[in-house]
Amino acid sequence: MAQNETTNETSPFFSEDDAALLLIDHQTGLIQGVENQDTITVRNNVLALARVGQIYDLPVVLTTSRAEGPNGPLLPELTEMFPDEEVIDRSDVNAWDDPEFVKAVEETGRSNLIMAGILTEVCVAFPAISAINEGYNVQAVIDASGSFNDRAEQAAMSRMEQAGVDLTSWFAVSSEMLKDWTKDIAPEQAGHFGERTGFYELVMASYEAAGSD
Amino acid sequence: MAQNETTNETSPFFSEDDAALLLIDHQTGLIQGVENQDTITVRNNVLALARVGQIYDLPVVLTTSRAEGPNGPLLPELTEMFPDEEVIDRSDVNAWDDPEFVKAVEETGRSNLIMAGILTEVCVAFPAISAINEGYNVQAVIDASGSFNDRAEQAAMSRMEQAGVDLTSWFAVSSEMLKDWTKDIAPEQAGHFGERTGFYELVMASYEAAGSD
Amino acid sequence: MAQNETTNETSPFFSEDDAALLLIDHQTGLIQGVENQDTITVRNNVLALARVGQIYDLPVVLTTSRAEGPNGPLLPELTEMFPDEEVIDRSDVNAWDDPEFVKAVEETGRSNLIMAGILTEVCVAFPAISAINEGYNVQAVIDASGSFNDRAEQAAMSRMEQAGVDLTSWFAVSSEMLKDWTKDIAPEQAGHFGERTGFYELVMASYEAAGSD
Amino acid sequence: MAQNETTNETSPFFSEDDAALLLIDHQTGLIQGVENQDTITVRNNVLALARVGQIYDLPVVLTTSRAEGPNGPLLPELTEMFPDEEVIDRSDVNAWDDPEFVKAVEETGRSNLIMAGILTEVCVAFPAISAINEGYNVQAVIDASGSFNDRAEQAAMSRMEQAGVDLTSWFAVSSEMLKDWTKDIAPEQAGHFGERTGFYELVMASYEAAGSD
Amino acid sequence: MAQNETTNETSPFFSEDDAALLLIDHQTGLIQGVENQDTITVRNNVLALARVGQIYDLPVVLTTSRAEGPNGPLLPELTEMFPDEEVIDRSDVNAWDDPEFVKAVEETGRSNLIMAGILTEVCVAFPAISAINEGYNVQAVIDASGSFNDRAEQAAMSRMEQAGVDLTSWFAVSSEMLKDWTKDIAPEQAGHFGERTGFYELVMASYEAAGSD
Amino acid sequence: MAQNETTNETSPFFSEDDAALLLIDHQTGLIQGVENQDTITVRNNVLALARVGQIYDLPVVLTTSRAEGPNGPLLPELTEMFPDEEVIDRSDVNAWDDPEFVKAVEETGRSNLIMAGILTEVCVAFPAISAINEGYNVQAVIDASGSFNDRAEQAAMSRMEQAGVDLTSWFAVSSEMLKDWTKDIAPEQAGHFGERTGFYELVMASYEAAGSD
Amino acid sequence: MAQNETTNETSPFFSEDDAALLLIDHQTGLIQGVENQDTITVRNNVLALARVGQIYDLPVVLTTSRAEGPNGPLLPELTEMFPDEEVIDRSDVNAWDDPEFVKAVEETGRSNLIMAGILTEVCVAFPAISAINEGYNVQAVIDASGSFNDRAEQAAMSRMEQAGVDLTSWFAVSSEMLKDWTKDIAPEQAGHFGERTGFYELVMASYEAAGSD
Amino acid sequence: MAQNETTNETSPFFSEDDAALLLIDHQTGLIQGVENQDTITVRNNVLALARVGQIYDLPVVLTTSRAEGPNGPLLPELTEMFPDEEVIDRSDVNAWDDPEFVKAVEETGRSNLIMAGILTEVCVAFPAISAINEGYNVQAVIDASGSFNDRAEQAAMSRMEQAGVDLTSWFAVSSEMLKDWTKDIAPEQAGHFGERTGFYELVMASYEAAGSD
Repeated sequence: MAQNETTNETSPFFSEDDAALLLIDHQTGLIQGVENQDTITVRNNVLALARVGQIYDLPVVLTTSRAEGPNGPLLPELTEMFPDEEVIDRSDVNAWDDPEFVKAVEETGRSNLIMAGILTEVCVAFPAISAINEGYNVQAVIDASGSFNDRAEQAAMSRMEQAGVDLTSWFAVSSEMLKDWTKDIAPEQAGHFGERTGFYELVMASYEAAGSD
Repeated sequence: MAQNETTNETSPFFSEDDAALLLIDHQTGLIQGVENQDTITVRNNVLALARVGQIYDLPVVLTTSRAEGPNGPLLPELTEMFPDEEVIDRSDVNAWDDPEFVKAVEETGRSNLIMAGILTEVCVAFPAISAINEGYNVQAVIDASGSFNDRAEQAAMSRMEQAGVDLTSWFAVSSEMLKDWTKDIAPEQAGHFGERTGFYELVMASYEAAGSD
Repeated sequence: MAQNETTNETSPFFSEDDAALLLIDHQTGLIQGVENQDTITVRNNVLALARVGQIYDLPVVLTTSRAEGPNGPLLPELTEMFPDEEVIDRSDVNAWDDPEFVKAVEETGRSNLIMAGILTEVCVAFPAISAINEGYNVQAVIDASGSFNDRAEQAAMSRMEQAGVDLTSWFAVSSEMLKDWTKDIAPEQAGHFGERTGFYELVMASYEAAGSD
Repeated sequence: MAQNETTNETSPFFSEDDAALLLIDHQTGLIQGVENQDTITVRNNVLALARVGQIYDLPVVLTTSRAEGPNGPLLPELTEMFPDEEVIDRSDVNAWDDPEFVKAVEETGRSNLIMAGILTEVCVAFPAISAINEGYNVQAVIDASGSFNDRAEQAAMSRMEQAGVDLTSWFAVSSEMLKDWTKDIAPEQAGHFGERTGFYELVMASYEAAGSD
Repeated sequence: MAQNETTNETSPFFSEDDAALLLIDHQTGLIQGVENQDTITVRNNVLALARVGQIYDLPVVLTTSRAEGPNGPLLPELTEMFPDEEVIDRSDVNAWDDPEFVKAVEETGRSNLIMAGILTEVCVAFPAISAINEGYNVQAVIDASGSFNDRAEQAAMSRMEQAGVDLTSWFAVSSEMLKDWTKDIAPEQAGHFGERTGFYELVMASYEAAGSD
Repeated sequence: MAQNETTNETSPFFSEDDAALLLIDHQTGLIQGVENQDTITVRNNVLALARVGQIYDLPVVLTTSRAEGPNGPLLPELTEMFPDEEVIDRSDVNAWDDPEFVKAVEETGRSNLIMAGILTEVCVAFPAISAINEGYNVQAVIDASGSFNDRAEQAAMSRMEQAGVDLTSWFAVSSEMLKDWTKDIAPEQAGHFGERTGFYELVMASYEAAGSD
Repeated sequence: MAQNETTNETSPFFSEDDAALLLIDHQTGLIQGVENQDTITVRNNVLALARVGQIYDLPVVLTTSRAEGPNGPLLPELTEMFPDEEVIDRSDVNAWDDPEFVKAVEETGRSNLIMAGILTEVCVAFPAISAINEGYNVQAVIDASGSFNDRAEQAAMSRMEQAGVDLTSWFAVSSEMLKDWTKDIAPEQAGHFGERTGFYELVMASYEAAGSD
Repeated sequence: MAQNETTNETSPFFSEDDAALLLIDHQTGLIQGVENQDTITVRNNVLALARVGQIYDLPVVLTTSRAEGPNGPLLPELTEMFPDEEVIDRSDVNAWDDPEFVKAVEETGRSNLIMAGILTEVCVAFPAISAINEGYNVQAVIDASGSFNDRAEQAAMSRMEQAGVDLTSWFAVSSEMLKDWTKDIAPEQAGHFGERTGFYELVMASYEAAGSD
């Protein structure tokens, strides 16, 4: 259960004030291993989630696994979106085994962690379970992650559930941060929904065309 | 576990005497975002569930999210079915954050809440979890709701399970209310099953034709 | 290639002036054998196609296979839609083997035949191939028909293709009859699209709501 | 956790000595509503499970819902397999609400209940949850049951899991009863596997042919 | 185009008087290679087709590929159904390369050949194309055959179409032989449909129960 | 067979010198009717195809169906990509029935037409068949079009095949125009592949990172 | 929760020092019963998991069910990989009911058990639940196991979850053992990933080719 | 129709004496673009087909597209299997546009071409159609090729069919070359089937185990 740091109230939801975003091993080589979402879709979802981090100014931690080798560098779009963030390159399989990564997480000062990564069964499941063990609240963003096949992903989801990780999707994370359509950030959020869900831009364009008659 | 208000006995089931129906954001624009059920099917299921509310005279709470904008108005058929119900239009993403909505729920005097909405991962999952946190019993009607894709829906279902929400379908809700085929309402319920499941009307028509020989 | 009766020009399309609609064995018992479309969907499509017949005042031929027995009577909605049409009940498997059926087709005076039936592999494929052999042009409406499974349907579609039958869907038939949105019938057709596609009613409702602001 | 009646030891497994088989509403009309398994498959699985009851001489309780009406009579093969069993016809939706049914269950003297029925979300889920509430151990046999669609079934499975029902399949039930291939019943069980899994008869036939060279 | 031997008229359909049934390599070992239909289903369909041969007294040719080795013997049920038929065991991959097989086909005196086999892409496609080349009319029964996967089957279906083979399913073959429900054989055929489609037995049972009220 | 205008040689392929691109009814309202591709994917494919038109400087014809009404305006991105192109708004269902559209096609001076549209079964199939009838060569771009469901699309594809339309995908069109990776346009084409296939940008980024070691 | 034997610390993960690998009934006959993964895939996964045992020198227990009969011998590749391991042939369905098997497990001295088997619903689920009951920690490797169909597998997964078994896949097991890419075993592990995931060998080959420019 | 070079007879089949194998663009980078078969499967099929070339000593032509760049080198296994074959690296998209490639094909002296490549819609479809235009007979091996998605592949298959290309799978090619199980090469072919189909090795192992009792 998330511990709201400001108000000390317990809430089942994360907010822009108490959450951090952890993007793990979204590397150009590793993404080729995702075979249960097509490449257009998983990239759309990863970038959609990263943009949530920008819109709500969440602390972001970026990490890669041996980016110099065949795993490849971080997705170029992520590097562009967070030019000032250090990318922590590791030799540990479980990011949580890397002290530098854990330190970066601690320095966010947030106890609610939003995690996504490639591949779900390792790069997300392992640190998610480790973080739960350390007392953090964790949401694993399934559609901004990816797996070898549906069977492997289903096993990973089951294991995370058993450990107490909440499963979610980038659209749910985004909506959880937005909270209220009267906030200043709402139009920016609406544009983001339009760009990344596809359908919402169409609905908005139809609406505007109809209203202008 | 549902608290039966009349008898004070605890039952794992909801009944027409202790349940309320909450229909959340079934709007003409938002439904376009449902991509894991086709439009014919999800509309059939939403209207089937709404009709259960009518047949068993359940207290109904209707709400929309910014119905004046591109999200669009409530499904016209719902407006027709419940002409006297106020539709609570909100700016809050989570309906439970809207005091007017919570007040409407409280005024039903029911502690067992049947919820459906578009999209499942936000419009159903958020208020369902909030209601559980307030001590209500909640059934989320999965097939009268809809999601971007099966992966997002699966995450939403997992999160609701973890929070203690029961998942169900409109046919199960309807059968749970019916309870006994000797009740006066049974023929009306049978007609409803016929119209909305498709197969049952066929079975009844075959039966009547055979019986009339 | 369709022979336009009025103008004697050859066209690859059917029109309201040269086509007849043949509905074959849509019976309450037989529809239970359709396992590659769910009941809600196949019934929606059958009724959508029948309504095209009404809107464009096409000559309609209705036939059943041993409706007194377990195959069951014609779908009640079809009986209601065409109260004045005789339903030709047959013992022949292939409707085209029944002289009364062929006579009814000939009496329509149309050489372009739109056929749908349950089950595709028999009730549609057999008479469609027979009619082609007699020099008629035939469109088989795949989604207003149904089959045991996708493999059987695929074989039936292949066999009809080989014989020269054109495959189509109810929406394509309807659009082919409409031809021009400035025709008097257009609003009625738009309402029909709204009711039977699901999405179009939503798009129209959103449009009207937006235009009324 | 199952309470072994003879030895008073607790086991997570059911055995032929402590389990009863409850077959609920496998009626000729209702089965038409199963749309997430094809008819050949669901019937194969229902008969396979019923045969387990015969092989291990389990107490069997048979019940139907308004078998005189369109729901139709019990599957003829079930009537043949258990000619001496009374079929309890009910008006209650939840079989557990029918005193006669509960009495029949009690008279089996077994605390471990194996349940299957049509449709899963109502005819299985409701009495399974009721039985759990009364202190019974329950296994729900998913593949000898059936549902409108996968979404409705998934909701039903989740709800049963939450209540503490174990989910299983007819092959697992059968193997759980068999326990040891040296038992006298083993050859009969092997024949049953051959007939109902399809693959095992082939494997046995190949084996025998090869051995006879 | 089939050449009707009695009347010398050309018909696009096969009949009980002019067709022969060729069952190719339905062996206990080879069937394990079918991965695009489950074992229960493909066996049901093979036996359903074989029964059509019995009901309409079609000449039947049975052949196997090296039945002494790992490919295994013919399906035991087929041996039982046709105890007097010789099973032609071959070393040729394409049955049509085996003179004994071709001779057996010629001795049927039929020019319309109904073929099924395991695996579709070899055991059906090769002799079907060879027979077409020799001037026979061929129907390949897709659902009484089977393939490694859908992609391989689709290629095989395309190749057969290009060569002029008609694709069909056992139910269509059966209906094509039946032709008229007033024939003496009709009740036997109805029973066969009931047993092998699953749904039809249910529909008949419901019908009889309703009629007996 | 395409008639190369410059060389008068017949080629089975289209080239940048002899082809025109026709985009038909990609409107914000109509796209909501596509239910056999998700919105992210179909929009990606439409924009990918439109970009091929830009890269190879193909003559482009844009048309809409009653864009003032609920069908909605052309996709905003298409308007931006082709700011100088007139958008021909029609009341005719079949674009080829509109003289202004046909005139625009004729004015391109190209006999090889690349067509895509929403919905495939009407907006693509109808004008594609009409154009074939007028002696044009036509490629229909299936993945930059969309349909109600796979069954309707399959029927439409079959009908177009029968009429002589070639089916293709945006990536094949693009590769057919490129022809040779030594052309000046190749780097721009490579960038386009990267952006719109997803995988190719990853492969290039991995390559560059590895090469830079 | 796993009890690390060396350090007495509790960890949610298994390691090469505290885990044993149990391979159950991967026999040539039984594998034919797997119908929810194709044979190429399930064999790849089983061999991939076995290789993890070799690479990390895990204690391995091999067992078969009546290997002399139609169930067939252990997969030949497994016999080759572990030539010195005794294969415990049993008559008990549940391997945990066989004292020799339990003794072999105890002799590994490990409390963390990695289990895979054919079929999941019996050969994995039964001993996994038994082992949990005896206080072991268990991971069930879903993709190196296999089931009759997805419905039966889903029931089995649910039942194991309820009992406290963690679900996983061979790639996750392998990564959990690796822990750190600086270990001596890492290159061997990388080669294994390349061979058994397919994609990783490609990524490495591309990387090396690019680096060598 | 294939022209048998030795006997001048026309046959619809290819043989080891008249066919050549063309492997096109199976490169480590490009294969990442295959999203309608998983990597394990498509690689298995490509290597299975290449092995057919070895077993029957077919002339083999290997070609790549810009192998120095991100497309990557030829699959390492292919380089190993054909160490003496030159790999023709091209800048032309359509291999048939490269004179060196066409010369290599001509030098095989074979008029029957077996083609596979990555991606189907370009690397197979383009040269296949070109070769047909030059009078060759072409078989396209669908499962040793791969595509972005099923829709793109279906369009490519349709286009090849229209041009007269025969579609096939590696197992059919292999069986077509084998022709007779009494040939010397048969045991080698059986071993190849065992390794690459998965199921056949199991069937053989079971057979041998049974025979040895």
